[in-house]
Amino acid sequence: MSAELFTHANDEAMRKRAEQVMPGGVYGHMAAHALPLGYPQFTLDGEGVRFRDLDGNEYIDFMCSWGPVVLGRKNPVVEAAVQRQLGLADTVNGAAPVMVELAELLVDTIPHADWAMLAKNGTDATTTCVTIARAATGRRKVLVARGAYHGSAPWCTPGPAGVTPEDRANLSYFDYNDITSLTAAADQAGTDLAAIVLLPGRHDAHRAQELVVPEFAQAARRLCDQHGAALILDDVRWGFRIDVQGSWEPIGVRPDLSAYSKAIANGYPLAAIAGRESLREAARSVYVTGSFWYSAVPMAAAVATITQLRDTDALTRIQVAGERLRDGLLRQAKAYGLDVAHTGPVQAPLLVFADDPAQEIAGRWTSEAVQRGVYLHPWHNWFLAAAHTDTEIDAALERTEEAFAAVARSR
Amino acid sequence: MSAELFTHANDEAMRKRAEQVMPGGVYGHMAAHALPLGYPQFTLDGEGVRFRDLDGNEYIDFMCSWGPVVLGRKNPVVEAAVQRQLGLADTVNGAAPVMVELAELLVDTIPHADWAMLAKNGTDATTTCVTIARAATGRRKVLVARGAYHGSAPWCTPGPAGVTPEDRANLSYFDYNDITSLTAAADQAGTDLAAIVLLPGRHDAHRAQELVVPEFAQAARRLCDQHGAALILDDVRWGFRIDVQGSWEPIGVRPDLSAYSKAIANGYPLAAIAGRESLREAARSVYVTGSFWYSAVPMAAAVATITQLRDTDALTRIQVAGERLRDGLLRQAKAYGLDVAHTGPVQAPLLVFADDPAQEIAGRWTSEAVQRGVYLHPWHNWFLAAAHTDTEIDAALERTEEAFAAVARSR
Repeated sequence: MSAELFTHANDEAMRKRAEQVMPGGVYGHMAAHALPLGYPQFTLDGEGVRFRDLDGNEYIDFMCSWGPVVLGRKNPVVEAAVQRQLGLADTVNGAAPVMVELAELLVDTIPHADWAMLAKNGTDATTTCVTIARAATGRRKVLVARGAYHGSAPWCTPGPAGVTPEDRANLSYFDYNDITSLTAAADQAGTDLAAIVLLPGRHDAHRAQELVVPEFAQAARRLCDQHGAALILDDVRWGFRIDVQGSWEPIGVRPDLSAYSKAIANGYPLAAIAGRESLREAARSVYVTGSFWYSAVPMAAAVATITQLRDTDALTRIQVAGERLRDGLLRQAKAYGLDVAHTGPVQAPLLVFADDPAQEIAGRWTSEAVQRGVYLHPWHNWFLAAAHTDTEIDAALERTEEAFAAVARSR
Repeated sequence: MSAELFTHANDEAMRKRAEQVMPGGVYGHMAAHALPLGYPQFTLDGEGVRFRDLDGNEYIDFMCSWGPVVLGRKNPVVEAAVQRQLGLADTVNGAAPVMVELAELLVDTIPHADWAMLAKNGTDATTTCVTIARAATGRRKVLVARGAYHGSAPWCTPGPAGVTPEDRANLSYFDYNDITSLTAAADQAGTDLAAIVLLPGRHDAHRAQELVVPEFAQAARRLCDQHGAALILDDVRWGFRIDVQGSWEPIGVRPDLSAYSKAIANGYPLAAIAGRESLREAARSVYVTGSFWYSAVPMAAAVATITQLRDTDALTRIQVAGERLRDGLLRQAKAYGLDVAHTGPVQAPLLVFADDPAQEIAGRWTSEAVQRGVYLHPWHNWFLAAAHTDTEIDAALERTEEAFAAVARSR
């Protein structure tokens, strides 16, 4: 295969229009100007794990809209549920019955969950968990890992612009997977410790991912119990992609509160907070709401998504696809003499090149890949979906091989 | 007419299920347990300004899902745009072209807007405005009116549970429509004044609404100019319902930043921030984002909604409907010897009874109305929509007359 590389005239024209009417063009995590050469900013349409940009280029997608797409775009069961609910009502007065059905499904599915609340953003969910923990304990201090992403509200956004010191006055920091560091931070917070917030694994951008060390998770659980604080699992990024019961269920550590969003409804806007019985009253006392927190269509999509994840082999297929991709990429890199590491879970991996602290080699490689129709990311973890069949993975690997070859040639 | 009052067996059964799996049942502003007798918690389906509860009772709706429904449920033009975009893609990698089209439409429609950003919750929009103002000025202090609702994040939620003093350390308060109070607060903030946040009118819950005094709005504008601070208009509740150019356009006072949500997409989940050229660079510097902030379906719905509000007589119809409702209610109250005031704009009014500080009379009246199929609220402003035809208003007035009669009998 020696395809012509993709071109992007329409995409570039649309970027210019975007820059006129949005600050810096498309902003936030979807800003393509932060990415290497060859990334389209805009998506026209898509199906399964394929999408097309404005110039008609088609990609095999390994970002899945940065997580939300977990089964595949336009999953027929999800879309049927969406159309059914659209025919009834979406944003209602009060709530639709599907809100109760979804809360019941979450409580039935997630072992630590005795109740659930629904929101719109992952940031809503993490912020609400912290607020509930403070309401329950009457304390202020919250521990978070250095470099961990928990959302983009002033208390947690990675960008400092517009953030005041007071927004973070009650945060203390520790190093992920470092029990000594975590224990010291907990001891320092002392009787004012309200919560420890943890990602299910270290998936900070711009570095190798790390799976959680089970003893570290156990230590966090123990420290929370000792201090009477809440253990909050921020499962926004990995939740419903690795284990439908929660990303720490395989290691047997159960949080008091967990935050979900992204994959919960296969692309429809929704977030969830799940909690233990002991925190129900605190959750009831907290006032959080939103104009669209009761919209029924995303809830119907979530019921259809979670049910499929629970009752079909969808999660196994995601894992198998991730292993096939991992094995293929590692084999190819080795063949071209490139030293790489596959980091994080196979369902949401990141390939890291040796001696590449600024992700320049990674950027060159993903740039070559995306221009051949494989959409990967140089410094943020990828996302696999159930629609990544063997055929899709193999088609992607054909092109990543050319990308490795191009990187090897340039060195 | 002497209809049997509505019954709610199915609704009550669903409430019991909800209480098992959600803290206190349905929470936030949609919690019906805070309302008087006769309110359904759940909505089954709806069309136009009618909806049905789980027991088959049908209501003429004057809450419009607390604002989002502005044209009417299942508006054919909006639904066609939704289906068209669903056929392409919803939550994408990057953005869909409709994001740019919507930002262009906002900039073309709102006189003070030179750029726009899109988010998911009204709270996202107000919080982002405050963050941009702080980024632009390098200052901390933000002035808000006592009792004003600007969202449910820790810095602004009306519920104190789980909120720390530090969350509000940089807020100062003034009284709405009180120039002396506002000036004093601005002077006290002095060189640390980043922004004044104002609702377009006083629409605090549990009290009579107040239209803004134009001189007060002008004073806020002048104070911001003098102090080099940003004037933020929180137009989440009234925006796109009263004037498509912004709720202060009729009085000619233009903010630096404005926050929108609710009616922007006729029920689909979306929020927007609009800002002046001078704040573009600050907006660019702020890091805010969300997994579903790039979802295209709500943006397509917004384009279809705003275009209809701008190019058809929809806003005139809302105003005419609101005036017809106001005139009818005032006539009826007078006939029954009840002393009431119609407060706020006709498009989002609240009827207040004299000598009713705890809204007990209001609660009795709306309870009687809702049990006859007219969905009103005792202590939160209502919302009119373009689908409130003369026929709908007159059908509602037939029933509110019975509700007034019942209140008069009970006194």
